[in-house]
Amino acid sequence: MPILVMKFGGTSVADLDRIRNAAEKVRAEVERGYNVIVIVSAMSGKTNELVGWVEGTSPLFDAREYDAVVSSGENVTAGLMALTLQEMDIPARSWQGWQVPVKTSSAHSSARIKEIPRAHIDQKFDEGMRVAVVAGFQGISSEGRITTLGRGGSDTTAVAFAAAFTAERCDIYTDVDGVYTTDPRITSKARKLDKIAFEEMLELASLGAKVLQTRSVELAMRYKVRLRVLSSFEPNTETSGTLVCDEEEIMESNVVSGVAHSRDEAKMTLVSVADRPGIAAAIFGPLADAGVNVDMIVQNISDDGRTDVTFSCPTDQVLRAERAVTEAKERGEINFLKLLSDNAVAKVSVVGIGMRSHAGVAAKMFKSLRDENINIKVISTSEIKISVLIERKYMELAVQALHDAFELEGNS
Amino acid sequence: MPILVMKFGGTSVADLDRIRNAAEKVRAEVERGYNVIVIVSAMSGKTNELVGWVEGTSPLFDAREYDAVVSSGENVTAGLMALTLQEMDIPARSWQGWQVPVKTSSAHSSARIKEIPRAHIDQKFDEGMRVAVVAGFQGISSEGRITTLGRGGSDTTAVAFAAAFTAERCDIYTDVDGVYTTDPRITSKARKLDKIAFEEMLELASLGAKVLQTRSVELAMRYKVRLRVLSSFEPNTETSGTLVCDEEEIMESNVVSGVAHSRDEAKMTLVSVADRPGIAAAIFGPLADAGVNVDMIVQNISDDGRTDVTFSCPTDQVLRAERAVTEAKERGEINFLKLLSDNAVAKVSVVGIGMRSHAGVAAKMFKSLRDENINIKVISTSEIKISVLIERKYMELAVQALHDAFELEGNS
Repeated sequence: MPILVMKFGGTSVADLDRIRNAAEKVRAEVERGYNVIVIVSAMSGKTNELVGWVEGTSPLFDAREYDAVVSSGENVTAGLMALTLQEMDIPARSWQGWQVPVKTSSAHSSARIKEIPRAHIDQKFDEGMRVAVVAGFQGISSEGRITTLGRGGSDTTAVAFAAAFTAERCDIYTDVDGVYTTDPRITSKARKLDKIAFEEMLELASLGAKVLQTRSVELAMRYKVRLRVLSSFEPNTETSGTLVCDEEEIMESNVVSGVAHSRDEAKMTLVSVADRPGIAAAIFGPLADAGVNVDMIVQNISDDGRTDVTFSCPTDQVLRAERAVTEAKERGEINFLKLLSDNAVAKVSVVGIGMRSHAGVAAKMFKSLRDENINIKVISTSEIKISVLIERKYMELAVQALHDAFELEGNS
Repeated sequence: MPILVMKFGGTSVADLDRIRNAAEKVRAEVERGYNVIVIVSAMSGKTNELVGWVEGTSPLFDAREYDAVVSSGENVTAGLMALTLQEMDIPARSWQGWQVPVKTSSAHSSARIKEIPRAHIDQKFDEGMRVAVVAGFQGISSEGRITTLGRGGSDTTAVAFAAAFTAERCDIYTDVDGVYTTDPRITSKARKLDKIAFEEMLELASLGAKVLQTRSVELAMRYKVRLRVLSSFEPNTETSGTLVCDEEEIMESNVVSGVAHSRDEAKMTLVSVADRPGIAAAIFGPLADAGVNVDMIVQNISDDGRTDVTFSCPTDQVLRAERAVTEAKERGEINFLKLLSDNAVAKVSVVGIGMRSHAGVAAKMFKSLRDENINIKVISTSEIKISVLIERKYMELAVQALHDAFELEGNS
């Protein structure tokens, strides 16, 4: 029987009624003839509760214990979903990450999936089971300890299962009905996209559009997993949701497809770094080792043999980043005068495959921000996106201005 | 180094402050030179929340999924306790049941511990770890699925670890400062016992005194584990808590040591059962297979070849029990006219090792209940206890009357 992967996010399984609603969607696919692998997140709010407790024990907590605690939320939902399906007379059972086992690296709290052996679940499908419910977001290291994949990791779990089981499709059920030109909570002019290219989705995901986790889109692109984002709170129709697909499937690309934002950014500057070959590696090596997700990097032109190096990272990694560079300084690997941290910045970006063939997008973006008197702190560009770091309080204003400037509302 | 087992119940780890308080007690023992195995329960209220969700999915749920869901509460506490100890610079890590592994039978939701291999934890102790934090209440079956030991199972986990690691003592930290002559919430005359014999504690535990789980006392008695029950909310002193020990250690046994009660009892009667040899097995075999914990059993004298069989079980197993006997009837294994369930009964018992050598305890008990106009529905006795089933609304009254009648208040 063909296999379908269905992933339900936290709001889609927030209570028993919603789990039942999600189970109905699973039932519909089982009745269409699929064997289904359901990937579940923790019930909405539960992961935050668990993270809050962990953070309450220590500011610099052991990531292995963090993973052991935080992964429990998904285990609860997996069991409840299996029970709900059983109550509908659908043969189902739950798997926790270590039971499959979902083999990952040992990078706790941001582990990468290395292998998903099919044997156990395939055997149960052969025995007549129709639905395998798997706890998302988690796996097991070669040392036998529980790992997690980082926030939003259940999307990655879903795509990895879809790839491992060569599923016909991977449906990501969430609380929005698709991917929008920008966050509808920021402007009511935001419009749902029927299709979006992997590359665009990748930029949007990494830029903070919280619909899909970046790594899940990367994985989907690499393994050609057909990915659909849709709402668990609306009846499914032919055109439900947004299809994330190859560029070729989209008739005419927009110059700009969307405006993304990311609120919890921090900007850190190492002031007056001794400039020499290899200095970037000396700075960013220890940061990577400390598990800091460095995003934008800017190095000012050096004139006197010293330079300022600025980078951004999520606000909750600032402490870790400060410690990593301070220790590198103590070890004599790098040398800087002082370390400045700015926790009150946000990132706003415009994304679109059409940018490749259209000049003037950057100029239009900068003019639009200037017209609103918004100061740009850092700029970073890729082939299909332009990002700026600005003061956090201007974030919504910037998104609205850019959405208007690129006429995304009517651009259907 | 000598090993100490310390178990913290749900109220002792109800939030981060209380976990820190419990960790301080662990630190004190580490500083006294012990390697400590800490067994933790779920944070107070968490297990009930999880059980509520499971029951919300289906009245006849799959016990394997129940176990997978409900065990998550202990995993959370284990991680948080390890993190808290680490923050105090005490080398510690957490183990979930399957990681040790705590090998159990496959009787889900009431599994029995079969083996606790020491190797992994011993190795970590050898490497300098001082505290192993283990999630209580859970294990893993030979099929690789998560099992739980039944409510209160963390006590059993603690005693089993104390036996496996030949611990010097097993301290059970809870929200009461010891074992009382009866429930202090029912009468303020209840008095703390300094020592109690294993046998008495066993009867009290199985009769609903919720201080210790029955099986944990059985285990402690079998493996001669010195068991101490004490409060995590008071400073430890020489005479803290109640020591559960051999009968010989207690200078003079009381005729009656305590009055126990159990609120959530149900009485079921099979009316007009065809009386023949083997009929008891035909009734109680299917009940055991269905996992019903049958407690008291009464069979009326048969005069016309038919008899009434009455038994008691926890109220939450009534549905399961009804199904088991109804199916046995459909299969032609038993024959009865009708099935009566009474969910509004309670059990009250008097317990004491001195009963063995003193006559008249039963007579005194029945007279005392008669004086309060409390009707006795079922009677059951053992060497050191007498139990009666009465209407639930009279439970508190009966306990108070019996506590007075046997002069337990002043009996120091």
